[in-house]
Amino acid sequence: MSTAVLSRDAAAELDARDPLREFRERFVIDPEIVYLDGNSLGCLPVATVARLERVVAQWGGRGVRGWDEGWLELPIGVGDRLGAAALGAAPGQVAVGDSTTVCFYKLVSAALDARPGRTRIVTDLDNFPTDRYVLGDRAGGREPSDVARHVGSDTALVTFSHVSYRSAHIADMAAIDAIVDDAGALMLWDLSHSAGSVPLSLDRDHAPLAVGCTYKYLNGGPGAPAYMYVRRELQAELRQPIWGWLGRRDPFEMAPGYEPAPGMRGFLSGTPPVLALAAIDEGVRIVGEAGIERIRAKGIALTELAIALADGCLGELGVRVASPRDPARRGAHVALAHPNARELCAALIERGVIPDFRRPDVIRFGFSPLSTRFVDVWDGVDALRELLSPT
Amino acid sequence: MSTAVLSRDAAAELDARDPLREFRERFVIDPEIVYLDGNSLGCLPVATVARLERVVAQWGGRGVRGWDEGWLELPIGVGDRLGAAALGAAPGQVAVGDSTTVCFYKLVSAALDARPGRTRIVTDLDNFPTDRYVLGDRAGGREPSDVARHVGSDTALVTFSHVSYRSAHIADMAAIDAIVDDAGALMLWDLSHSAGSVPLSLDRDHAPLAVGCTYKYLNGGPGAPAYMYVRRELQAELRQPIWGWLGRRDPFEMAPGYEPAPGMRGFLSGTPPVLALAAIDEGVRIVGEAGIERIRAKGIALTELAIALADGCLGELGVRVASPRDPARRGAHVALAHPNARELCAALIERGVIPDFRRPDVIRFGFSPLSTRFVDVWDGVDALRELLSPT
Repeated sequence: MSTAVLSRDAAAELDARDPLREFRERFVIDPEIVYLDGNSLGCLPVATVARLERVVAQWGGRGVRGWDEGWLELPIGVGDRLGAAALGAAPGQVAVGDSTTVCFYKLVSAALDARPGRTRIVTDLDNFPTDRYVLGDRAGGREPSDVARHVGSDTALVTFSHVSYRSAHIADMAAIDAIVDDAGALMLWDLSHSAGSVPLSLDRDHAPLAVGCTYKYLNGGPGAPAYMYVRRELQAELRQPIWGWLGRRDPFEMAPGYEPAPGMRGFLSGTPPVLALAAIDEGVRIVGEAGIERIRAKGIALTELAIALADGCLGELGVRVASPRDPARRGAHVALAHPNARELCAALIERGVIPDFRRPDVIRFGFSPLSTRFVDVWDGVDALRELLSPT
Repeated sequence: MSTAVLSRDAAAELDARDPLREFRERFVIDPEIVYLDGNSLGCLPVATVARLERVVAQWGGRGVRGWDEGWLELPIGVGDRLGAAALGAAPGQVAVGDSTTVCFYKLVSAALDARPGRTRIVTDLDNFPTDRYVLGDRAGGREPSDVARHVGSDTALVTFSHVSYRSAHIADMAAIDAIVDDAGALMLWDLSHSAGSVPLSLDRDHAPLAVGCTYKYLNGGPGAPAYMYVRRELQAELRQPIWGWLGRRDPFEMAPGYEPAPGMRGFLSGTPPVLALAAIDEGVRIVGEAGIERIRAKGIALTELAIALADGCLGELGVRVASPRDPARRGAHVALAHPNARELCAALIERGVIPDFRRPDVIRFGFSPLSTRFVDVWDGVDALRELLSPT
């Protein structure tokens, strides 16, 4: 990289000094690939292979008795561990189960029911599509930064992604929670692109509601179920709409009439997906061991390097950094805009560099601080430079 | 068993002549246990262990590229194979994903929206609790046999279990579908206790809608996701309420505005649970290989034996057969009623016989024709006889 601000050797030197470098060995990684898409699907933890073998063997050996031996506690147990490792949530406020879409639907519905007479929902037109689709025609698009101007006495619900799936912009959670609370509305955060990469303080920031997916920085596996956070004070007031046997007080009564279980169990619906929950548990454990503050520090260093390299050698080739330049307002991925982003992504994948493409013009380089090296950042930017350089 | 109509050797002889006997080897089975709860959680197929290893390895090796290599097709692909093996459904009418509760909620909501102005929902008060909870206060209880008297021009939706989770009673699907259709209402079947044990002919019987779980006779694993069947003619008319990115026309557009994908994909919501879908695929495959008609024939033989044995030696000990005596109207489990059912179940489990208890007084002996032997039936009844016999 002739014009680089930093040589590949210098990037390798950063890896040698990285306090998290040994965590890369905790994942199954193809050495031929530069994987920059852990923000879409995180890597497979080595421990997950053995954990899945154990839970499958438990199914084989114990059959239905497994339900009395810990399976039934997984939605809340994994939720508590996730809350401690990544969400800044005290126990009893997180439940895992159902897809992100279903979790989001449940909490939107619960929030709207809890604010009768208020008709406005405020969201960000650049929010992740599934969130906008669940809101349907009720969505009105606003940037988080000017949320105060758009929230009023008719607002029932405000919902944003904490980290934008496109730009990696980080919303100011505490400030927005306060604005929304002052208006008497409820705030629902989508943490899909935050949890496991950016520290969260849901309790301290007075976040009322949140959902998020587990297969990105939490490495839960393809299509792993999502989680819901409901602040303790709200749990008795809010009622989710999908009344299944598992969310009922004493589910094994199988009695007439639905009365929700107290606490987070009342936000569950059907039978917990045991294999998937076991896999999430292992992903969450690694985040806890590494420590979210160290993960965040490395995430900033990786994105800073990517931006410095992009400025140094990609700007003149027509690539624009489309993520915030202030690291405090940027998550763990970097959006690089180019008119031919789609073709460039395909060509990068051809060369063994795996980013993803987001319409209309974004190449997203996602960095998983536990498994991405500084040389991976260098190699990714260099591959893009080569593709764009006149031959 | 002194009073038995059949000796254990005679039961072993039935096993020796069983055309499905070799299928037992396709499952992981603890030889010390008499497992009579495959109607709650089916056994682990041997092939599932290897299939899960493969899909986990694919996650590890291919990462996000797995989505382009078959993962995205799993909800409909597994659905089509399930439809062929167990539901009597031509391709393009079954989708797998979400829990049974969530699938049921989606189709209830879609059906009610499609019948505006009609206010009545008809169900069976003995229907599985989760179904009744989703319906909430709207449920009015009726037996399937007298459905015609309770369905009228104000009825939007009728929903029953095809096989009752308690008694194993089989509802007359074709007759009920015709009655409900004549009234202009929609019929929604819960197939959880049927699929994989009792042949279904959804297409031929003109069933409009169905859901069912996959972890019972389909051996999909603890908490495995459920399926929805939506008759082809209804797919464009019905709209499910949980609008996620995967159910949208061209999900990767991530464009504004939700427009459902055509066909069954429009009934999906979030990202498909890949590991769980792979496991279901293996369970479904075994059912397809064995053939649902042979499975049904053995299911009848197993329950006939259980009832004959119960009549022969348990009746005088206070046990009443609480399942239909007509095998044509009985699924693959047998309900044995006794005032001390709860304690008896616990004592059976202590002895290595695994049934389950259903309030208030039912011991449920579930037979999975692919893995349950005639001697298991004999041993289960004999263990109960011993427990009840005066010492």
